[in-house]
Amino acid sequence: MTDQPLSTIPGPIDPPRRLLMGPGPVDAYPGVLRAMSAPLVGQYDPFMTATMTETQELYRGVWGTTNDATLLIDGTSRAGIEAAILSLIRPGDRVLVPIFGRFGHLLAEISERALAEVHTIETEWGQVFTPSAIEEAVVRVKPTLLTLVQGDTSTTMLQPLDEIGEICARHGVLFYSDATASLGGNPFEADAWGLDAATAGLQKCLGGPSGSAPITLSDRAVEVISSRKKVEAGIREPGDPSSPDFVRSNYFDLGMILDYWGPRRLNHHTEATSMLYAARECARLLLLEGRDAVIARHRRVGAAMLAGVEAMGLRVFGDVSHKMSNVVAVYIPEGVPGDTARAAMLEDFGIEIGTSFGPLHGKVWRIGTMGYNARPDAALQTLVALEAVLRRFGAAVPSGAGVDAASDALAGS
Amino acid sequence: MTDQPLSTIPGPIDPPRRLLMGPGPVDAYPGVLRAMSAPLVGQYDPFMTATMTETQELYRGVWGTTNDATLLIDGTSRAGIEAAILSLIRPGDRVLVPIFGRFGHLLAEISERALAEVHTIETEWGQVFTPSAIEEAVVRVKPTLLTLVQGDTSTTMLQPLDEIGEICARHGVLFYSDATASLGGNPFEADAWGLDAATAGLQKCLGGPSGSAPITLSDRAVEVISSRKKVEAGIREPGDPSSPDFVRSNYFDLGMILDYWGPRRLNHHTEATSMLYAARECARLLLLEGRDAVIARHRRVGAAMLAGVEAMGLRVFGDVSHKMSNVVAVYIPEGVPGDTARAAMLEDFGIEIGTSFGPLHGKVWRIGTMGYNARPDAALQTLVALEAVLRRFGAAVPSGAGVDAASDALAGS
Repeated sequence: MTDQPLSTIPGPIDPPRRLLMGPGPVDAYPGVLRAMSAPLVGQYDPFMTATMTETQELYRGVWGTTNDATLLIDGTSRAGIEAAILSLIRPGDRVLVPIFGRFGHLLAEISERALAEVHTIETEWGQVFTPSAIEEAVVRVKPTLLTLVQGDTSTTMLQPLDEIGEICARHGVLFYSDATASLGGNPFEADAWGLDAATAGLQKCLGGPSGSAPITLSDRAVEVISSRKKVEAGIREPGDPSSPDFVRSNYFDLGMILDYWGPRRLNHHTEATSMLYAARECARLLLLEGRDAVIARHRRVGAAMLAGVEAMGLRVFGDVSHKMSNVVAVYIPEGVPGDTARAAMLEDFGIEIGTSFGPLHGKVWRIGTMGYNARPDAALQTLVALEAVLRRFGAAVPSGAGVDAASDALAGS
Repeated sequence: MTDQPLSTIPGPIDPPRRLLMGPGPVDAYPGVLRAMSAPLVGQYDPFMTATMTETQELYRGVWGTTNDATLLIDGTSRAGIEAAILSLIRPGDRVLVPIFGRFGHLLAEISERALAEVHTIETEWGQVFTPSAIEEAVVRVKPTLLTLVQGDTSTTMLQPLDEIGEICARHGVLFYSDATASLGGNPFEADAWGLDAATAGLQKCLGGPSGSAPITLSDRAVEVISSRKKVEAGIREPGDPSSPDFVRSNYFDLGMILDYWGPRRLNHHTEATSMLYAARECARLLLLEGRDAVIARHRRVGAAMLAGVEAMGLRVFGDVSHKMSNVVAVYIPEGVPGDTARAAMLEDFGIEIGTSFGPLHGKVWRIGTMGYNARPDAALQTLVALEAVLRRFGAAVPSGAGVDAASDALAGS
């Protein structure tokens, strides 16, 4: 093969200007983008290992935990989910998955791939579960592991977790939560709520790019993981029997990953240095502003966006009292072509809003205010653009009502 | 929990100046670091999908293939390996792994985790396999899949692959190669050599950060993958039987990943945008300089480094005629404390060189000249610093011999 002719080679990456107001990914904090252009260092450079340790401490602050086992998985948020589930359950173990949106289905899917005996309970999209509904299922199913999404962007709902850990502890069940969409924009207290494992991604309220999955594990979870440890091939003798308990993945074997992040620094993967820098900066910026302050900013800007869309006459989807603060879903007004209007938002105003999945596909738009974009100016720009686009597509929208209501909410809060 | 006190929060990332001349990761090209600080766009933004498509075409040029299924796995290089192996074999399938270094053991390890029946053949570290040795094992084992490292940094050896594809085709065996350490710095011809699957990472000769794994799959490999397709939970009915053939991972299910990268753009993970930008820039810079020119540059600078260390009186490890062009291993001279001298290189000169694994740990140093650092100035700086450090630790080193020999090699080549 000869080299590809030079004429077909494109220039350096040059993305168009966007304001990402969908359900995520959203614009990264400028500091996070800068961090990723920092020079690389070696895998065992003292600066590298110190940065890994520092990042662990920063994420303890983000998760609300003293868990020693607080680290990053090198992959997108579902890499973190799979690492947690694969390492905590053995084939045949019972897993309980309460499903209130698309990402509950994903937890069930990943558990099935791990050959778990998967039991699900479902509630209508737009609702969440009561603690007693979950306890009833726990008692009936007697699972090894309860997996529960905290914030499901597909429905915008935020499942209360604060009473669930106590239920799990009482029944001897491991408790895992996927906080990808919610962490940083809504309260999360890994220790106070009794989580055994929790994972997230950077691309929502943490204001970074997809590609690194923060994870935290309780001592109890680490015990389970340690009990299944398998020595990496090359040390193990060829004739040795394989324990039926080993994790069915090398990449997601948390036992080995913990050895890499821990004081032994046993080689596993080569840590993704630039994503580590990004993850560190996401946590650093959050703690610098103050975790509670960041959550309050999400609440304030999210409330303004909610007030704005309601004042425009848009009907909000789901049980608003359980909505995540960082995203709202509104029904697409009758007669408005959803995808075409969304494309006009993007092409004419450079603003991205989202559609949804499954039963909500084509029926609602999802508008996010998260991470760097949980800002008053971002919310107000989106509302004025949306009003213009809705009017262009024939919807009767009270002039200026959305932006006025949002401004009032911001002024009053 | 209250917010972490401000006083404990560190400043923005600020790595020390390093010249990374170990076996990788190495310094990224400045253009790659710049690419990662480009703003994000939405997951289905026309710019995003166009960038994904463009990156696929760029990597076809890097791999030497017309494979439609040429894409990235979101994770480090071993994520690519695991995706390839998990998707190509079923539990119980026979996998043949010729092992000539640490990363052969990794291929066996990953195959065992995938519940394959793993058969290995081994050769002494520092050697490679003849095609006939591999064919003999293929005939004896009758594997479904042959997995073979191309360049194993643990020994610096480059396994010739050009005759292996034909052997596999003749015996109906799928042929996978891990080209993490070699791709971009040594010839690789996915189509001409009959590869069914090959994976790599960015952090070696491609000159990017770890965290994205380029992969290419032949039509035959895609057929195998398609035959095991499993519909994602949420669409499948709860009572349906699970086919025993489904891939035991959601994250690494190439069937779903191909649907995400393909024209259907079915949602799977959220593509790691900044790593995509980095991977795109790695391939772009390689093709801009010219693939053959980049390989020639690695050969030229690698030969200069080899001449330099030999002229310094250092004994080179392994069969030099099968050495990768981008890394050389030298025995640590007797009486020189290996780790202390390596630390002096790092602390006093800011230059990183590597040790090795297993039987070579503490016995050899590995010096890389790869990607951005496959440059004459980087090689010469390393040689003068190494001479100074060796002398300080009492080794008898002919003054200036290393740098002179390397300069001569560069001038003559």
